[in-house]
Order: sequence, then C-alpha cells, then structure tokens
Amino acid sequence: MRTPTRIIDCNVHHAFRSPADLLPYVEEPWKTQVKQFGFRSPRTYGPPGKSHVASAYVPEGADAAADPDRLSGAFLDAYDIEYAILTGSMYAISVHADPDYSAALASAYNDHLVGQWLPKSPRYKGAMTVAMQDPQQAAREIDRIGGHPDIVQIGVSSGAPVPYGQRCYYPIYEAAERRGLPIAIHPGTEGGGIANPPTAAGYVSDYFQFHTALPHSLIAHMISLIGEGVFERFPSLKFVIAGAGIAWLPHLMWRMDRNYKALRSTVPLLKKMPSQYIRDHFYITTQPIDESDHPDSMRQLFDMTDAERMIVFASGYPDWDFDDPSAILPGLSDDARLRIFYANAKELYGL
Amino acid sequence: MRTPTRIIDCNVHHAFRSPADLLPYVEEPWKTQVKQFGFRSPRTYGPPGKSHVASAYVPEGADAAADPDRLSGAFLDAYDIEYAILTGSMYAISVHADPDYSAALASAYNDHLVGQWLPKSPRYKGAMTVAMQDPQQAAREIDRIGGHPDIVQIGVSSGAPVPYGQRCYYPIYEAAERRGLPIAIHPGTEGGGIANPPTAAGYVSDYFQFHTALPHSLIAHMISLIGEGVFERFPSLKFVIAGAGIAWLPHLMWRMDRNYKALRSTVPLLKKMPSQYIRDHFYITTQPIDESDHPDSMRQLFDMTDAERMIVFASGYPDWDFDDPSAILPGLSDDARLRIFYANAKELYGL
Repeated sequence: MRTPTRIIDCNVHHAFRSPADLLPYVEEPWKTQVKQFGFRSPRTYGPPGKSHVASAYVPEGADAAADPDRLSGAFLDAYDIEYAILTGSMYAISVHADPDYSAALASAYNDHLVGQWLPKSPRYKGAMTVAMQDPQQAAREIDRIGGHPDIVQIGVSSGAPVPYGQRCYYPIYEAAERRGLPIAIHPGTEGGGIANPPTAAGYVSDYFQFHTALPHSLIAHMISLIGEGVFERFPSLKFVIAGAGIAWLPHLMWRMDRNYKALRSTVPLLKKMPSQYIRDHFYITTQPIDESDHPDSMRQLFDMTDAERMIVFASGYPDWDFDDPSAILPGLSDDARLRIFYANAKELYGL
Repeated sequence: MRTPTRIIDCNVHHAFRSPADLLPYVEEPWKTQVKQFGFRSPRTYGPPGKSHVASAYVPEGADAAADPDRLSGAFLDAYDIEYAILTGSMYAISVHADPDYSAALASAYNDHLVGQWLPKSPRYKGAMTVAMQDPQQAAREIDRIGGHPDIVQIGVSSGAPVPYGQRCYYPIYEAAERRGLPIAIHPGTEGGGIANPPTAAGYVSDYFQFHTALPHSLIAHMISLIGEGVFERFPSLKFVIAGAGIAWLPHLMWRMDRNYKALRSTVPLLKKMPSQYIRDHFYITTQPIDESDHPDSMRQLFDMTDAERMIVFASGYPDWDFDDPSAILPGLSDDARLRIFYANAKELYGL
C-alpha cells in the first residue's frame, strides 16, 4: 500500500487493555472508590456502594430480592405484609433510544414476572411494564399481559423525553383504562438515556442532589396529566406516584388551585379544581418518607389536604432508601394508619 | 444568466407580507386570541393578555410600573410600603445565547436603573443584574455597579443551562460576597433561550402548567448551591429565592436532611445539615403566596421550619400574580408578620 505523501494523522484513539490500566494513575479518594465500585458512567446517578439495603444480602450473600421464596419468607413475613406489589427495577426500559429494543425488553420482563414470580406466592401481585417510546406497541403489550389475574398495575419510569400528559401517550391510557390498571410512575432514570435533564436547572453533580430533586419530575408529570385534561378524556384512569415521598402535596395542591383560579382560560379542557383531580385520580406512596422529627407535622400535612385517602404505603424494599413500616408516620391516628398501610391499596388494586 | 438544464427547485420559502395574511385562515378560538395578543413564539410561556395587573394601567392607560413617580406615588403610598426593591423584568438577559450581547444588555439595564430610577425616591433600592453566561465579565459588572449605595442586590434568572451551584459561577459569588450583595434568583425564563426545559419531565403545553412547575428550577438551584458546598467556600453569601412561593419549604428541608444522613459520603464538602444552610444563607419571598384557604395551615408550615426568619414579603407588583400585602398570611402572629413584612428584609438589605 502506497501513500500519496508524507502523513500526519491528527486523531488516533489509543486504547486501554482494561480500565484497570488507568487505576494506578488515579488520585485518592477516587482510586479507592473506583476499585470498590468501578468507573462511573457519565450522567449516571447512583448511590455509593450497593443499591440494596445490607439486610437483603444476608445470611448467604445472595440478594434476597432476587429469590421469590426468600423475599416472601424473609421480608414479607418479617414485617407481616399481606400483599406486595412487585415493581422490579427495570425502569431504564423507557429511556432507551431504540423503541423496538425497549418494547422487547418490556415483554421479556413481563413474561419473567408472570412465569417466575407471580405463581410463587398468592401474596405477590405484579406491576407489568411497557416501553413508553412507542405508545401503540405499549397498548398492545397491555392487552397481551394486562388481563393476567395477578397483574394489578403498569409501572413506568418518570425519566422521560416528554411529559406524560401529552397526547402521544393516549393509546397507553386507553388500554390501561380498558384493563382497569392504574399506572405507577417511579423515579430513578431522570437524566439518563433519552430522558430530560434531572432538574429544571439542568444536570446536578452528585446523587445527593439528584435524589433530593427526584420528586420534581413526578410532580411535573402530575401537572401535565392534569393540565392536559387527561382525566376528562379517561375518567376512570388512576395514577400512582411512587418513590417521591409525600410532603410536597399541600404545596402542589395550593399552587395549582390558585393558578387555576387565575388562568383557567388557558386550560379550557379542565372541569374541576386541579386538587380535585389529584384526589380523584392519584395515589401517592409514602416512600422515601419525608417526615420531620416532629410526629405532629405529618398529621398536620395530612389534615391540610385529605391526604389520608390518597396515600398508600410502600417500603421500597430492598433499595437503600427503604422504609421500615413500623418506624414511619407515628403521629397518625389508628384509623389513618389503617387506610394508608392497608385499606387504600386494597381498594386501589381490588385485593 | 443561463442554466445548465431544466430545473426543479425543491425548497423555496414563499413569504407573508405580514403575519395578518394568515389570520383569515385561523380557526376560532385561536383567531380571536391571535388578534388580541399576536402569534405566539414557540416555547415561550406567558399569561394570556397583559402580564401586568389591570390597576397598573389606570387612569390614563400608561403602565404605572414604567413611571418612577407614579410607582412610588400610586403603588407604594397605597400600600404603605417603606422600601421597594426594584427588580425589573429583564431576566431573559441570562438565557440569550450570546454572552457579550447579554453582558451589554445587563450593563445598559444597570445604568438605566442607577440613572433613571434610584434618584427618584429614597424608597427605591435597586437589584442590579448580570449575564450569568460569562462569570468573569459578570464579576467585573458587579464591581462596576455594585458599590452604588442604593444597589442592594444582584438579580438573575432561574432559567439557566447549568445549576447555580456549579463552579463556573464562582467568580460571580466571589464578587457578590466582596460587595456584600445578596443574589436573588427569579423565575420566568425556564425553557427559553439556552435554559433547560422548564420541568424535569420536559416541555409542558401551557402557561398554567409552566407556572405551576416554576418552583422546581429554583429549588434545584438551592439543592445545587448547597450540595456543591458553595457556602463553605463563600460563608457570608446570601441568596433570595423570589417568585416561587414558600409552601414547598418543609418538604425540601426534610427530604434534604434525610438524604444527607444517608448519603453524606457523596457530599464531603458539607459541614452541617442542609436545612441549616437554608436557614443561614437563604431568604424566600412570599409571592406568589401558595397558602390554602385555612389560615392555620401557613402558621403550621412556618412552625415546622422556623420559616419566620427566612421569609421576606414581596408583592411581585405589577405582575398578574401580584400579592396584596393586606390579604396574605392572615393566620400569623403580629410578631411573625412584622418579621416577614419588614424586619427580615431590613436586616437582609441593611436598610
């Protein structure tokens, strides 16, 4: 092979045999961190160390959450939990760029759930998932799997390129309403894949900031769902807001209602106060509970918003920010606790 | 001029003589809306109609907020306001793509403020502005204008490409600390220019949704400022969170503190609880007040967070979501009202 002249090549990518080649050159404390947890991916936010609580790995080191028998035996029995909605961990499905790959992954996830988990205990109820990127395909998946008697919910990621009230998603909502399945929105994929940046101010630097701001995307989806008139179009549709805590609820209801009074001409599809749509169409899970050290505070917040009828318990097990049901919401009445820990979810899921 | 062959041109942009050419073809109700307010810009969110309260335009139709004598005579006297921090309306300066054009606009704004407004009444105090796109240039502007005795604040937009805790902005904070000026962050430019989308879920469809979600970007800037350790680096720096209401404060403090307890290894620069940084470095303006119909609710929220020392009154005059000082926060004690309507700001601005 002959070259036409003398050559300078201005871009040749030399490679590492393995990422470990770089390690001796990394300064502390990063070196130790990389040794323990590996190099990070850009724009991937995660807790330091293992994402599951330590107790999930005892006694033998294997992850209890990955073993249907151990999860019901160890976890559900230990906390005296009658039913557990299995919500998995594959939320990234909705932020992959390729809609067909994502849809295939969602179907695989659902078949695994139906085949390997739901038969193992009558206490397990399943949240199927769909890839939101292709709403028509997602609707077909809801019809394919959603009729299974132990599928009680559709679970999707709150990380998204477009807010969930927008019309592109309506085939999914039509299918969910037809099957009588609530749709749970769960955080964690914000800023990943094709999702928007994780905050309205952009990309933050660490998981502490990322996690603190996570409720924002879920609240934005709520604002979008209400503002677009989704519940006038799909009057029996319910949403579950998971993994975002609950203490933001009074603020959202008050601000939304005040804005509706002043700006209702801009949202002509709405027929009632925004806070009423929240009461009629949303359930909000407790975890990770954002209560203060004063037990009275939560009771006051609940009283401000009739939250008692909207809140459902979730532990988030086995995630690091898991809530122990015996430790949270001590200031509520017995009646309120029964609603939140049991009765509201029984009604929501038809158990 | 000869052409080499017969020609088909596949992209020729025919034009309108004026936008009105399109109007006869627009269906109602859009036709009437466009006639009244003009065609909208894409991705520009705004209230329907005039953005100022109607009372600002009486008696003679001119905007009272654009007339130094009328503003102090009509507005300040009517509400018995001792000092008004003039915050203007040119927040878009920080979301223009061109940093030098933006810096020139900021300087012009500041010179107009100092020349045309501040001399007109001893009750006027000014918030200078800077273009955040070029922090070094912004720092020079703070040194150029910030020493004026009636400049008491630096005001910037919350619409931004990068959260305000990030290190690129530190020259601005160094200058603000040196001049003893608090920095006020004000919403409205979210999703415009080079700013991020207005919510963590993306672009919403209307101003009702946009405005309801506005606190998210300000809260994200707070999380960023605290999480990045800005206040360990600039221990006397203060921020004012304007135009976002206040009822989200308990939620933010509780969630942030809980996360800090679990994740403090990820934010090693922090030396105290996040809620303590909020108490020590932030003032939050009341407007647009997000209180419920029950006067007790706000008192309870204030008690939960020691908010009494952090909240300062702002009317937002003459914006459509202006708050009448005689109408808000009726449930607070006289002592709390004095702090919020007067004493906190007197201390903050050294009046």
